[in-house]
Amino acid sequence: MTFERYELGEIDLQYGGHLPAAQITYKTHGTLNRQKDNVIVFPTWCTGQHKDVEWIIGPGKALDPGRYFIVVIDMFGNGMSSSPSNTSPPFDRSRFPRVSILDNVRMERRLLEEKFGIERLKLVIGRSMGAQLAFQWGSYFPDEVERILPMCGSARTAQHNYVFLATLKMALTSDPEWRNGDYASNPVVSRQRMRLTVDAWGLSQTFYRRRLHLNDRFATTQEYLDRDMPLSFGDVNDILTQIATWEVADISDNDRFNKDLGAALRAIKAKAFVMPSKTDLYFPPEDSEIEVASMPNAELRVIPSVWGHRGASPGSDPADIEFFDKAIAELLATTSPVK
Amino acid sequence: MTFERYELGEIDLQYGGHLPAAQITYKTHGTLNRQKDNVIVFPTWCTGQHKDVEWIIGPGKALDPGRYFIVVIDMFGNGMSSSPSNTSPPFDRSRFPRVSILDNVRMERRLLEEKFGIERLKLVIGRSMGAQLAFQWGSYFPDEVERILPMCGSARTAQHNYVFLATLKMALTSDPEWRNGDYASNPVVSRQRMRLTVDAWGLSQTFYRRRLHLNDRFATTQEYLDRDMPLSFGDVNDILTQIATWEVADISDNDRFNKDLGAALRAIKAKAFVMPSKTDLYFPPEDSEIEVASMPNAELRVIPSVWGHRGASPGSDPADIEFFDKAIAELLATTSPVK
Repeated sequence: MTFERYELGEIDLQYGGHLPAAQITYKTHGTLNRQKDNVIVFPTWCTGQHKDVEWIIGPGKALDPGRYFIVVIDMFGNGMSSSPSNTSPPFDRSRFPRVSILDNVRMERRLLEEKFGIERLKLVIGRSMGAQLAFQWGSYFPDEVERILPMCGSARTAQHNYVFLATLKMALTSDPEWRNGDYASNPVVSRQRMRLTVDAWGLSQTFYRRRLHLNDRFATTQEYLDRDMPLSFGDVNDILTQIATWEVADISDNDRFNKDLGAALRAIKAKAFVMPSKTDLYFPPEDSEIEVASMPNAELRVIPSVWGHRGASPGSDPADIEFFDKAIAELLATTSPVK
Repeated sequence: MTFERYELGEIDLQYGGHLPAAQITYKTHGTLNRQKDNVIVFPTWCTGQHKDVEWIIGPGKALDPGRYFIVVIDMFGNGMSSSPSNTSPPFDRSRFPRVSILDNVRMERRLLEEKFGIERLKLVIGRSMGAQLAFQWGSYFPDEVERILPMCGSARTAQHNYVFLATLKMALTSDPEWRNGDYASNPVVSRQRMRLTVDAWGLSQTFYRRRLHLNDRFATTQEYLDRDMPLSFGDVNDILTQIATWEVADISDNDRFNKDLGAALRAIKAKAFVMPSKTDLYFPPEDSEIEVASMPNAELRVIPSVWGHRGASPGSDPADIEFFDKAIAELLATTSPVK
């Protein structure tokens, strides 16, 4: 099966503005059972798309389509769901409005309910910005989510994470060809500068100390930095829209919690495994530890990775991936307080 | 006393090239005693100048000019000693050759010997790139240096540190006004982008989590990032020259050690306190720990700072500064194996 598209019609957005003909794209794996109680939601992350999640789904893995109905949902701005690059004027390019984490969650919920009649989720699992959605799902819809597994992410974008995002924005907008988003073609220098920024932040000091970036192709760090490879981050306006979501992410910034993060975390009834990567420079484990302290049914499970923010991602240390996969299986086997 | 200038004449450089009329500037504090055994050398760091060291020198402090003859020496490229901004063609601007850490140390040694007849040092203390000089002093001239105190620095630039420096270079050279170094005036956008990069790397996640960047002037992180303040980093070509020194820094990259870092560290006879900052993202404590393991007379003294690379710098946590100052005093009071 290829992916599916769901038309949401006109939607109002949390921070003002609207989209006239919004759409959300997704791909399902496995079969929805009769009780509709085998549903796992996996939202994408910044620059990620539903296809990037497929590697962790399969027979014999924790996310087994033989048992579960796994719905991988594209985040707004990722070039698949409504994004600057696929939206008509007047909301194209840099005119695309800011979409919140909660906007994403509400629309995912509409999709699940309207399209499939799904009313409760066995698990919401997400990486990075996807983890922010998992927290938001559990906090805003506590009686509908049995388990969450936020991984390499946070419930609220930390101050330092915000500063890091400012450097990413700087890189993306520094190319004169960017032209405030009205570029003729997707700016190359912007994406090269983003790649270098991510090279520095996305892994860890220990990763580089162990020279895991060097191999037959790259004998030196300079050769590695000069590498010629496809810039797969996507459209620059799309990335900037996703960063606009990320930089203000806060599961408590809504009518229900009024920016009381503790309250928003305490509201999460779901059984949770919060899984930072030990060496993640975007989302250091200390932040996860603080979050878990406010969550009634959460456990901190630090992935013992040297791959920084890329811990347990495809191509990283197989031991980390196994650690992650086992944790998913264990969480799915627990009894949830949400009945 | 204002600073002094010492003419070195034509000097050959380690990585090739030469400077026809090199000069080194410095400022002394206190008086050289008759035995010439009360000498402390304090080299500057990347973007630092001798005046920036004055705050830590004074009566009642460990670096007491009533007891010691403290020579603060400007690093090449810092805008005081020979630098792109003060050198005549054909070695001005981006034509300035690469200067090594060892070049700096050799010329400092010439200054001390030729100008003052100094043959041994009670202490070499340095921060960041200055710490790299302290390691080099102790390793290359082991019988002349009684103590070293490298702080927030390394004996060899780590792979990750190199990648970080690539992001700094990217920021500095991204301004179209930079024009490969032949700018009409010191590029503003380059320095703004460098400032943002340093905002993200130079402190720590914990620093921002505690909101130590916020105050009466800045209520939000965005206001802090948008702050209007003098860009005091200096001339862009000068900064790039200092980065060119930093990125290849390696105390073992010379005729004596042939890139055997362990041998270069084992050669250090000086009593050493190696003092990383606990949260330094440039020079994480793990690297210092590895270095200390190879040094015969070294102790690891981690500054328990949340100020990242700026730990124990002026304006940072007074407790960190006190920790640092006490360590200097303690080190000066130890008996050195170098007699």
